[in-house]
Amino acid sequence: MKVSIIMGSKSDWGVMSAACDLLGEFGVPFEKKVISAHRTPEFFVDYVKGARGRGVDIVIAGAGGAAHLPGMAAALTTLPVIGVPIKSAAFNGLDSLLSIVQMPSGIPVAAMAVDGAKNAALYAISILALRDAQLAEKLEAYRISQKEKVLQTEL
Amino acid sequence: MKVSIIMGSKSDWGVMSAACDLLGEFGVPFEKKVISAHRTPEFFVDYVKGARGRGVDIVIAGAGGAAHLPGMAAALTTLPVIGVPIKSAAFNGLDSLLSIVQMPSGIPVAAMAVDGAKNAALYAISILALRDAQLAEKLEAYRISQKEKVLQTEL
Amino acid sequence: MKVSIIMGSKSDWGVMSAACDLLGEFGVPFEKKVISAHRTPEFFVDYVKGARGRGVDIVIAGAGGAAHLPGMAAALTTLPVIGVPIKSAAFNGLDSLLSIVQMPSGIPVAAMAVDGAKNAALYAISILALRDAQLAEKLEAYRISQKEKVLQTEL
Amino acid sequence: MKVSIIMGSKSDWGVMSAACDLLGEFGVPFEKKVISAHRTPEFFVDYVKGARGRGVDIVIAGAGGAAHLPGMAAALTTLPVIGVPIKSAAFNGLDSLLSIVQMPSGIPVAAMAVDGAKNAALYAISILALRDAQLAEKLEAYRISQKEKVLQTEL
Amino acid sequence: MKVSIIMGSKSDWGVMSAACDLLGEFGVPFEKKVISAHRTPEFFVDYVKGARGRGVDIVIAGAGGAAHLPGMAAALTTLPVIGVPIKSAAFNGLDSLLSIVQMPSGIPVAAMAVDGAKNAALYAISILALRDAQLAEKLEAYRISQKEKVLQTEL
Amino acid sequence: MKVSIIMGSKSDWGVMSAACDLLGEFGVPFEKKVISAHRTPEFFVDYVKGARGRGVDIVIAGAGGAAHLPGMAAALTTLPVIGVPIKSAAFNGLDSLLSIVQMPSGIPVAAMAVDGAKNAALYAISILALRDAQLAEKLEAYRISQKEKVLQTEL
Amino acid sequence: MKVSIIMGSKSDWGVMSAACDLLGEFGVPFEKKVISAHRTPEFFVDYVKGARGRGVDIVIAGAGGAAHLPGMAAALTTLPVIGVPIKSAAFNGLDSLLSIVQMPSGIPVAAMAVDGAKNAALYAISILALRDAQLAEKLEAYRISQKEKVLQTEL
Amino acid sequence: MKVSIIMGSKSDWGVMSAACDLLGEFGVPFEKKVISAHRTPEFFVDYVKGARGRGVDIVIAGAGGAAHLPGMAAALTTLPVIGVPIKSAAFNGLDSLLSIVQMPSGIPVAAMAVDGAKNAALYAISILALRDAQLAEKLEAYRISQKEKVLQTEL
Repeated sequence: MKVSIIMGSKSDWGVMSAACDLLGEFGVPFEKKVISAHRTPEFFVDYVKGARGRGVDIVIAGAGGAAHLPGMAAALTTLPVIGVPIKSAAFNGLDSLLSIVQMPSGIPVAAMAVDGAKNAALYAISILALRDAQLAEKLEAYRISQKEKVLQTEL
Repeated sequence: MKVSIIMGSKSDWGVMSAACDLLGEFGVPFEKKVISAHRTPEFFVDYVKGARGRGVDIVIAGAGGAAHLPGMAAALTTLPVIGVPIKSAAFNGLDSLLSIVQMPSGIPVAAMAVDGAKNAALYAISILALRDAQLAEKLEAYRISQKEKVLQTEL
Repeated sequence: MKVSIIMGSKSDWGVMSAACDLLGEFGVPFEKKVISAHRTPEFFVDYVKGARGRGVDIVIAGAGGAAHLPGMAAALTTLPVIGVPIKSAAFNGLDSLLSIVQMPSGIPVAAMAVDGAKNAALYAISILALRDAQLAEKLEAYRISQKEKVLQTEL
Repeated sequence: MKVSIIMGSKSDWGVMSAACDLLGEFGVPFEKKVISAHRTPEFFVDYVKGARGRGVDIVIAGAGGAAHLPGMAAALTTLPVIGVPIKSAAFNGLDSLLSIVQMPSGIPVAAMAVDGAKNAALYAISILALRDAQLAEKLEAYRISQKEKVLQTEL
Repeated sequence: MKVSIIMGSKSDWGVMSAACDLLGEFGVPFEKKVISAHRTPEFFVDYVKGARGRGVDIVIAGAGGAAHLPGMAAALTTLPVIGVPIKSAAFNGLDSLLSIVQMPSGIPVAAMAVDGAKNAALYAISILALRDAQLAEKLEAYRISQKEKVLQTEL
Repeated sequence: MKVSIIMGSKSDWGVMSAACDLLGEFGVPFEKKVISAHRTPEFFVDYVKGARGRGVDIVIAGAGGAAHLPGMAAALTTLPVIGVPIKSAAFNGLDSLLSIVQMPSGIPVAAMAVDGAKNAALYAISILALRDAQLAEKLEAYRISQKEKVLQTEL
Repeated sequence: MKVSIIMGSKSDWGVMSAACDLLGEFGVPFEKKVISAHRTPEFFVDYVKGARGRGVDIVIAGAGGAAHLPGMAAALTTLPVIGVPIKSAAFNGLDSLLSIVQMPSGIPVAAMAVDGAKNAALYAISILALRDAQLAEKLEAYRISQKEKVLQTEL
Repeated sequence: MKVSIIMGSKSDWGVMSAACDLLGEFGVPFEKKVISAHRTPEFFVDYVKGARGRGVDIVIAGAGGAAHLPGMAAALTTLPVIGVPIKSAAFNGLDSLLSIVQMPSGIPVAAMAVDGAKNAALYAISILALRDAQLAEKLEAYRISQKEKVLQTEL
């Protein structure tokens, strides 16, 4: 069981590190790598094609602007790919979101909210929890503790 | 193993039926239901809460406009939820997409493209295939046949 | 006579407190609560369903991003619901606005401007003033004092 | 008890008639009028200022494009005003929506969805039902019949 | 010969003062006033209707958000009205622009760029220059000096 | 006294002819020409520079997409230029509108609504009426007849 | 000398054929192929990498939605790549445009207008004409004939 | 061999200087000039028409807002023109992008990303490299060094 977290540029790390933190909190193994569909296409192809062999179950890909990383990852593997649109300078992430979510029929990507790296990790956990009762329990517990935090909020 | 396909209105069926067709093609059992977070909230809460008990692994929810169905489903279960934004009359699905994808931290929904019901089914299959080798093979075969169709296209 | 002011997260309080201030200024009783349709769905259902029993006449709900709080409140009560779209990080509140205003036929929500908490309170007062002559007078007086402030502006 | 339904142009009637139909169904008296803030400003001022005197409790105003009708009505009365953005030729109602919903602090308008005339009527009824138990019952019954229609939908 | 400069709120003065400065530079008489279509509707109606009597030839109106000031001014006079959309908090002036420019057939407003108060003054001058040869000369001179400034720019 | 009506392509004539009709109705002389800033730049420069010499007072320019015609006309003359954004295939005129209205400081264009050719003519008339009492009377009469039409509308 | 025209789906041919027609008119050799970055990634990589070897100078890539074809082509070759955003069902090509134009630093794509296949061919010709005097002459002649067509337009 | 870099205002230099830096790094000669289609139209026409005579092969034009500089340059020369949309105050460069990219059939401009001056230079180099083997080698080397930088990124 492993999640692969990739991002197009080191500048995405400020957002994407939240996914690593959350997976770590749940004890889910992960690998993380800066890898660009545009700047390192050959390495990228090999890396994604090798994911299953490295024991990867799910790919989380964060990218901004003309965000091709999640979609190209989905083109190169049949593992579930989760895309995180990174907030961009000019269009605040609208370009990132549309580049990730509007995938053609046949090659799905699961888009999260702009900068939604934490939710990407939670979604990956919800997938892994389908076959891991212990993880499922942790996820339920996480939800309950989240509820409690909201209910205890004082204004 | 079962996928639950829900939609907010019968008018969404023209889009969402593609998800059922694809799941049928792959031999994945599914249930389907028109059920509205807004118009039938109590029944909706019970239906989503009962999903796990009915053997459901994944929820696919299609909705348009102020599309709350996928997000509310995700609030009521820890099963993975896939949201399909339905093209709307005024904003062509931009409202549907933003209402589905911009979920708050803690409750993820996997957004597909506007009217991307077929990809929702393929994404559900990619999740189920993580623990079902036969389904994984079918998915690979589907990808290959898809490739061949593109490569045989003549202009 | 009571107004219920709910918001999805403590971070909305900076905006929503303006509604409380205004209601306080008019002497209208209100309750206020952080309560999330996504993170505390069961409590939320009970809270909204219990509103009439607590003497609530109007619900003011502030939420950002995939803002489901006002729409789900409207689904659970026939009391008038006023929605306040909170300015969001990525889309400046366009996502919040569309998620709130584009409600399906049958379940109306009254949308205010982005961050328009003060106007939500004034709108609630205009509703309550229909059956409270004293409140109606206060509202007229408020308008007149507002006029005077504008007319006294010097450039 | 009366609702005043105004619209900027006869071409809005195709949308706005749904509000009249719904009010008629609930037995709520209403007046209806084509009246333009831009083309008949003096008459418009008098008409809105005279609303309370004609027994009007709530104003429903439908307008498209640079939709000033609801906002100007709200400026001229302290009665609750409900705005219906009409779908426009160039921007599909985005211009209408923003012109209606982005009101300045002090003068609220309750915006409905684009072309949401039926919901405007339902919202007006929810306001009137606060002081009319019979109307409140009818509204509950309407909701229940709506629920049943959804639950009986077969795919 | 006089230009009337109105704005919906004192907060618009930071932008609108540029129009006054430019008119002053050209020696064109002007009046300036904070006056709100929403908050001071009666005074506003009188003020615009009285413009011609005060010797006003052109109205420059700046407003933000649901910017009704220019359109309502145009409804109340047949003098040329120039609208300046003020940059808004949530939509950066897109709401202001659409509220000003999308006027219905019959009541034109001349929209400038967002925050384009200086250009509003220049446009007013170009209108006045049609019947004032001296002003026309000044405008030509202004253009020439502007050209020279650009051509002298060193990188 | 003359108005020059130019447009970038014959396909704009369906919209722009409304300006000619209206000017004709008011007895205002006009010239009309298909002339492209992009496809006939030299001729365009000469044509606009020669406008004053041909007795032109005001230029009305209609263009769609990357609509440079009004802005370039304004660059080449100090006569008032009115821009009409033509509805475009991909962006429904948003591209046309932004290309016309967002002019830099120093070179103003008066933008009308998308496809607002009739209002362009009315705006030109309001400018010409400043020095032509007969035209001013006709414009007042036009407004009155417009009012009467609205007031006589029956639903 | 050769231009390679690729598109993501046969449905793009209705738009992209205009590029082939124009190149044919100018006598510029071209190859054309339906090839998908998402559905045929391996073949796509080989095809683009082999372009220079096939004598290709310029790549024209048309794609819609999450349009990754032009950007991925640019990632795989240092030949100039021209991207044509195809009008999409939900967002009229805004998604296609942003996915193509918002490329990260280091890997440029030259974006044309939505559905601008003809201009893509003209742009390719302008590049090739830099080293082909005969082609340069043809391009000048094309421009002149285009000018004449505009100037001969009668209204 | 020369690239001409023009921009509408000195304020664009902060962005456009990146293009000069990159060309300098590659040893490609360039000229640079602040020149405005709107403020210096005659000089602009002469400057662009004279480009070929000055040995210019490619024009890079940066502009913001109603960005007419690239399109008008393309209208005045058959040399390839690359447009750089500069981020604008109100619309973050959406106005600049649409004004540049949505060119009419017959007059192409190659649009880069918002503020994409560096990519404009790289694109110009890719064009020049078609006939300059040494430059082609430098471009390949640049790509390789870029790859290495990405691959060496540590998280």
